[in-house]
Amino acid sequence: MTTDANQYRTEHDSMGEVRVPAYAKWRAQTQRAVENFPISGQRLERAHIEALARVKSAAAKVNADLGVIDRDVADAIRAAAAEVAEGRWDEHFPVDVFQTGSGTSSNMNTNEVLATLATERLGRDVHPNDHVNASQSSNDVFPSSIHIAATAAVTGELIPALDHLAAALERKSVEFADVVKSGRTHLMDATPVTLGQEFGGYAAQVRYAVERLTASLPRLAELPLGGTAVGTGINTPPGFSAAVIAEVAHETGLPLTEARDHFEAQGARDGLVETSGQLRTLGVSLTKIANDVRWMASGPRTGLAEISLPDLQPGSSIMPGKVNPVIPEAVLMVAAQVTGADATVAAAGAAGNFELNVMLPVIAKNLLESVRLLTNVSRLFADRTVDGIVAHAERARQYAESSPSVVTPLNKYIGYEEAAKVAKKSLADGTTIRETVLALGYVERGDLTLEQLDAALDVLRMTHP
Amino acid sequence: MTTDANQYRTEHDSMGEVRVPAYAKWRAQTQRAVENFPISGQRLERAHIEALARVKSAAAKVNADLGVIDRDVADAIRAAAAEVAEGRWDEHFPVDVFQTGSGTSSNMNTNEVLATLATERLGRDVHPNDHVNASQSSNDVFPSSIHIAATAAVTGELIPALDHLAAALERKSVEFADVVKSGRTHLMDATPVTLGQEFGGYAAQVRYAVERLTASLPRLAELPLGGTAVGTGINTPPGFSAAVIAEVAHETGLPLTEARDHFEAQGARDGLVETSGQLRTLGVSLTKIANDVRWMASGPRTGLAEISLPDLQPGSSIMPGKVNPVIPEAVLMVAAQVTGADATVAAAGAAGNFELNVMLPVIAKNLLESVRLLTNVSRLFADRTVDGIVAHAERARQYAESSPSVVTPLNKYIGYEEAAKVAKKSLADGTTIRETVLALGYVERGDLTLEQLDAALDVLRMTHP
Amino acid sequence: MTTDANQYRTEHDSMGEVRVPAYAKWRAQTQRAVENFPISGQRLERAHIEALARVKSAAAKVNADLGVIDRDVADAIRAAAAEVAEGRWDEHFPVDVFQTGSGTSSNMNTNEVLATLATERLGRDVHPNDHVNASQSSNDVFPSSIHIAATAAVTGELIPALDHLAAALERKSVEFADVVKSGRTHLMDATPVTLGQEFGGYAAQVRYAVERLTASLPRLAELPLGGTAVGTGINTPPGFSAAVIAEVAHETGLPLTEARDHFEAQGARDGLVETSGQLRTLGVSLTKIANDVRWMASGPRTGLAEISLPDLQPGSSIMPGKVNPVIPEAVLMVAAQVTGADATVAAAGAAGNFELNVMLPVIAKNLLESVRLLTNVSRLFADRTVDGIVAHAERARQYAESSPSVVTPLNKYIGYEEAAKVAKKSLADGTTIRETVLALGYVERGDLTLEQLDAALDVLRMTHP
Amino acid sequence: MTTDANQYRTEHDSMGEVRVPAYAKWRAQTQRAVENFPISGQRLERAHIEALARVKSAAAKVNADLGVIDRDVADAIRAAAAEVAEGRWDEHFPVDVFQTGSGTSSNMNTNEVLATLATERLGRDVHPNDHVNASQSSNDVFPSSIHIAATAAVTGELIPALDHLAAALERKSVEFADVVKSGRTHLMDATPVTLGQEFGGYAAQVRYAVERLTASLPRLAELPLGGTAVGTGINTPPGFSAAVIAEVAHETGLPLTEARDHFEAQGARDGLVETSGQLRTLGVSLTKIANDVRWMASGPRTGLAEISLPDLQPGSSIMPGKVNPVIPEAVLMVAAQVTGADATVAAAGAAGNFELNVMLPVIAKNLLESVRLLTNVSRLFADRTVDGIVAHAERARQYAESSPSVVTPLNKYIGYEEAAKVAKKSLADGTTIRETVLALGYVERGDLTLEQLDAALDVLRMTHP
Repeated sequence: MTTDANQYRTEHDSMGEVRVPAYAKWRAQTQRAVENFPISGQRLERAHIEALARVKSAAAKVNADLGVIDRDVADAIRAAAAEVAEGRWDEHFPVDVFQTGSGTSSNMNTNEVLATLATERLGRDVHPNDHVNASQSSNDVFPSSIHIAATAAVTGELIPALDHLAAALERKSVEFADVVKSGRTHLMDATPVTLGQEFGGYAAQVRYAVERLTASLPRLAELPLGGTAVGTGINTPPGFSAAVIAEVAHETGLPLTEARDHFEAQGARDGLVETSGQLRTLGVSLTKIANDVRWMASGPRTGLAEISLPDLQPGSSIMPGKVNPVIPEAVLMVAAQVTGADATVAAAGAAGNFELNVMLPVIAKNLLESVRLLTNVSRLFADRTVDGIVAHAERARQYAESSPSVVTPLNKYIGYEEAAKVAKKSLADGTTIRETVLALGYVERGDLTLEQLDAALDVLRMTHP
Repeated sequence: MTTDANQYRTEHDSMGEVRVPAYAKWRAQTQRAVENFPISGQRLERAHIEALARVKSAAAKVNADLGVIDRDVADAIRAAAAEVAEGRWDEHFPVDVFQTGSGTSSNMNTNEVLATLATERLGRDVHPNDHVNASQSSNDVFPSSIHIAATAAVTGELIPALDHLAAALERKSVEFADVVKSGRTHLMDATPVTLGQEFGGYAAQVRYAVERLTASLPRLAELPLGGTAVGTGINTPPGFSAAVIAEVAHETGLPLTEARDHFEAQGARDGLVETSGQLRTLGVSLTKIANDVRWMASGPRTGLAEISLPDLQPGSSIMPGKVNPVIPEAVLMVAAQVTGADATVAAAGAAGNFELNVMLPVIAKNLLESVRLLTNVSRLFADRTVDGIVAHAERARQYAESSPSVVTPLNKYIGYEEAAKVAKKSLADGTTIRETVLALGYVERGDLTLEQLDAALDVLRMTHP
Repeated sequence: MTTDANQYRTEHDSMGEVRVPAYAKWRAQTQRAVENFPISGQRLERAHIEALARVKSAAAKVNADLGVIDRDVADAIRAAAAEVAEGRWDEHFPVDVFQTGSGTSSNMNTNEVLATLATERLGRDVHPNDHVNASQSSNDVFPSSIHIAATAAVTGELIPALDHLAAALERKSVEFADVVKSGRTHLMDATPVTLGQEFGGYAAQVRYAVERLTASLPRLAELPLGGTAVGTGINTPPGFSAAVIAEVAHETGLPLTEARDHFEAQGARDGLVETSGQLRTLGVSLTKIANDVRWMASGPRTGLAEISLPDLQPGSSIMPGKVNPVIPEAVLMVAAQVTGADATVAAAGAAGNFELNVMLPVIAKNLLESVRLLTNVSRLFADRTVDGIVAHAERARQYAESSPSVVTPLNKYIGYEEAAKVAKKSLADGTTIRETVLALGYVERGDLTLEQLDAALDVLRMTHP
Repeated sequence: MTTDANQYRTEHDSMGEVRVPAYAKWRAQTQRAVENFPISGQRLERAHIEALARVKSAAAKVNADLGVIDRDVADAIRAAAAEVAEGRWDEHFPVDVFQTGSGTSSNMNTNEVLATLATERLGRDVHPNDHVNASQSSNDVFPSSIHIAATAAVTGELIPALDHLAAALERKSVEFADVVKSGRTHLMDATPVTLGQEFGGYAAQVRYAVERLTASLPRLAELPLGGTAVGTGINTPPGFSAAVIAEVAHETGLPLTEARDHFEAQGARDGLVETSGQLRTLGVSLTKIANDVRWMASGPRTGLAEISLPDLQPGSSIMPGKVNPVIPEAVLMVAAQVTGADATVAAAGAAGNFELNVMLPVIAKNLLESVRLLTNVSRLFADRTVDGIVAHAERARQYAESSPSVVTPLNKYIGYEEAAKVAKKSLADGTTIRETVLALGYVERGDLTLEQLDAALDVLRMTHP
């Protein structure tokens, strides 16, 4: 690509003429947007451009089938769209995320690039509006492209990554099945659990995240396509939207459906807000898991030190030999980012008026970025942290045995209040619960036998009552 | 109830003695909590106390069935719990929402009140821990009570209220089926829609909210009960939790189930965070609807004035005769409250460590309050606003006909760019689209016939292409 | 007060007649609001009612001074307002927080109660609008009352409570000045600090919170009063607002000023959003402090156990003898509540249109409640947790000495990479840093002397390099 | 730069060897980070890299002054840092934002690039840790760099942009001083205001934003520099931090100061959370302004149409001739983004433990991005929207005169309730207030004279009572 910044050509649109870089596949409306919105320097997510191209390709096919445009024009558009979907022309999508709230600039960017590529291929003029955008409006195409991109990313990227993470956690759950340790509630010593039970709980959290995303999918996979400008489907031939959605669903393998109510689908973006909420809940889950893992690995000398994490990089530019839980920290930062992104999506989702929500690009950016970050960090967490975790079983068992809460099984023999006395005395004297029970004469008095005492104080058995 | 503030009795617990008001059904631990947490003056939600009582009642029955406690003790507890569930003893639940993060103080409050009432009834001592709390821990009972209360409130209160609102909106959708008006995108004149289509869209938003809540229900209705202190179920007899949950489910008619993983269920509160997210999405939906309704009713002279809302109260203490959209404003404020409550729930949900999340009471308060506010305001919105909406059909039709966007159907006759010229000229000249098309000679030149022109410009037909 | 629910009288307002409970001091508009808004059951904050009464009192005085109302009417209003300010008539303020967004219902509630009380006192009719509300509008009075109540609560309640907390933390900073412990970064062992340094840092966080609130005060203490309906001050006599504000400032001792721009002051509530943000930052600070304190106190056997907190109540209904950090947990829950309240305030603050923000009551509720919660919990935290903290100095010193990061001062003698080798070998061998340095021959080779080594490894000295 | 992806060299650090691209100026630790964190693809903000370079340059100078490193080494580092500050080596900062939470990887990236460039320049080895990072730690340098970058961006970019926007709004306030229009409260017709008053209010909101940012600056401009690893300043020579901060302040002209408490400064990032809150408040302000402007410009035929905005680009891919308020929409999306970013910053700010907050990079990214987005969109809004706004004065005056609320000044002649009757009758009959007053005989009866009536109903006069 020659990108000589000094060469320009003149393009026009319904508002007049505009100078466009000579090398650019885009045209006048894209150029206006480039000049109107020098705000963030951020462009649409890759998955989003791909989804736009897929809609345009399917629309071209159906427009030809229905006689709206010529078959050869459609074929040229489809060939161009295939290249755009693959990512070959990403540099020709220069419009800022912070643009017109309908995403019209990015829809027109897509129309223009495809028109140019199709024109080059076909040898005769393909028009961005009259051909590429035929039977469509930004107002149905652009939000549809967000739903398609999000559905693809959630089902094709995030859920597999979560399955991968859950599997890693489950392997550790099995591996650590007999590593008994002190439970902790309120951060305070509690009755024993196994490290395997904890990792099983983390795995369950991740499996539930998949369940949540799957439960929201029916509304995420619903497309406003066919509503065109305001939901009525004006300028769309009968059968168009159903055929286009079927075509995109066929090509992508996604469970896409047409909006059950096109006025809901155009005026609100509630399905995206819902999915964002589920991602936020996943962020909450990962925060819990990452914090537990960090604390278990804290030390090596002045922390809990129940496990070790893999050493990935020197941890400090000043303290030699320090190794830090860097991946769990990245997990926590992603979770914080996703929480904020969700707040943005919700605020944007609430800001619609009448027949259109005009916060679409900022919703798209935040939702798709969250999916991407969560996908990447879940895989990293599995591969570079969870897989390499080593348990310090002996230290963990010492914790379990030293916890005053191991007195709990004695409630049924001596009652809650006597048991509390035992726990407090044991702590004050620095003795074990067993020693204290004997010293206080419960066995002697026949409240329980020595066998019952020893069985009751078996910490591993306490984890599987 | 005699509540002489000057009379006290002495109670004790495992930490020693404490002075309790003579009239109080609560005992030492509740009293400690009253003194420890003079923070908000807010108590548990009514639905929450009811749920706690239901768990205690079922637990008493099952404890008796399993031989853990005597049958007559169980019966006395159950009789007491029935009264607490009904709300007869709410004043004896004085513990502040902002208390210990496990809700132990409120669990003990319940244990103590039930023990006192059962003791009075039975004529012999019923112990808060050893009888009422037998086989249980705050750590599984308290979160279970939140899930039960939320499940009950969502299925028994909120969803019916939403169905009620959706039905009201749908009736208006039918009533306004032929009220044609200008669509608005970006707040700017767009192609026509009917007022009925808009209300149909709002109804769909509300129906989807029910779908969302229902989709999350399987995880909301899952109870940590049976995990006791740390998820292992220590001190719980075999079969206890399944039987208790079955009993509560039977008595309440709720689809309650036991946690699939008791370590997830104890360490995380993700199911509550998820439901909170769905409530937040409902808040987003209601914001959109209330804003549209407010704007449509704006005026009467200087706004859009497409509809009128019922007059409920004088609107201004200074401007005579002013009537304001007060219920939609209340809807918006509830939505803002729910959004904030959701942020609280998410922050609290992320704050768990190891075997317990200790932000439970603040989660409970915000989640249950949100359900209650949304329930009440949805019914009010239906009954005092939606039901009484009157359309100004004539003004609406004038809008539809004056919108320059009615040029849109001409795209297929004269192309997008010519149509843009027509729209702009019409606007500049203050003429109608029809006049401009004729003036510019498109019919004369044969681009379309007069019949085609008139058919294309029929605004009601544009809403059902 | 006789509150026979079956006795009614008939009142009227500009919309007609309405039945009001016979005992009620309120009248028709309040009653309409009671019936229109059965939403939350929550009423205005006490401080808010007081602020409304103070404005009404000052307005009555100035209206009399300016000849707008008779002096005896003014005096009767002022006497009534003094009683309302004290809280004698709180039960006569039954309007729900979720009401009309301008707070008109609560302004009219105040007008009506004062009119009734003044009428009773004066023996002739005092009118809610024409006398009590003279020269005012809900649109300037109600937001002014929020600013006054918030200014009073921040300066009179919260800042003193924060000073109290900071002083408690500072006392501990002095007490723990020589308690050396391991620093922790990334939760991992780092170079030593003293416990006193940590508490000094917490105190500084709290002192900064006071600085933040003080820095925002100029905008919080600015009142829209005088703008009346839309900011223009229509129906207000010259000099009215300045005189009223001076009077309220004089009576309350608050640094109240008149809005510099009455259109900003009426259309936006940015000053409240700003203050809410500062409270949120305080919540962030308290979260950090409470978490550190909880973790330091974790154990007693399986946690960090560097300090002990006072025992306030039994910690578990199942695990005998357990004591939990219940006040720090309450602090964390308040912080989560404040974070959510801030999200509500921000969403509400952004929702204004043209000459009025109609989310005022929900802003008021959340802002004033946050101030109150933070006030109460700060004092509790100081009195029931910080004051009673006991350091485990010996254990803390052992931590400090065992941390591999005490190798850090050797960087200057042997370089970062050699020091890293020492740290790792020490950790692998289970030896001290000193032993490892000697074993590896650095002293022998003359990289440093034994004296330099011992001086470098003095952990207390490391905290004051 | 030759960036042959197939050529590598071997570097080592304290953990061993690592393969680094041959062309890279970075070394082993950067490379480890590149491989450890393939998460977002996002790098540090440009302003952040510049700030890091400025710290390193000043530190090199002071280290040489204090005899810690050789002068020629320092000079080489300073020359390299000057180039990095300018942006010449940005491609050599490949570390992902989502990395270790201390930013150690980016600090080491800076150290390594500077070491390489300085080595090339000096012809002898410059060490990343022992020379470039001498007397420093990531834990004080990295957060300091955030504070410096944010202080620079706020004072040097954002505040000037806000001044620019405020000036634009103030010019319009003057221009529209006599454009009288209907005020709107609750979206309903209210008493008149001028368009100039409204724009003056918007300008005031923006001016207050500057005041807010300025009020928070003392805490934003405070640097943790000098605390090194844990706040104690270990491994830092006396006078180092003061001299470095003075040097950076001198070079940048920023009002930088040293932390008053180095333990607060290291363990908390409250100063960044506070500034983020102020940005969020600015987002709230801009939302109000942008929405008002959008609504005033709504139409052209079916909206309020009180003003026109400049035409920047075709508004619809389907509706010809449509022009939308695209810049205000971008403003709204930036505000939503900033709101979410603030939620991220707050969550991250609350997540610190003990001597370090390890959410630094995500705080930096969100805070600095928010400043940048707000800067850019504020200028765009001024230049491409506000400057080109045209008032439709005649339509606006018609609104003012038709509003039933113009009855308000009659309160003093006929009382609130009579005035309410006039307003309602006028609305019902479709007559003007003046006509209704005459028809109802108030003048005839002598309640007011015709002259008083006409003076009272002068809408422009009502805006300046």
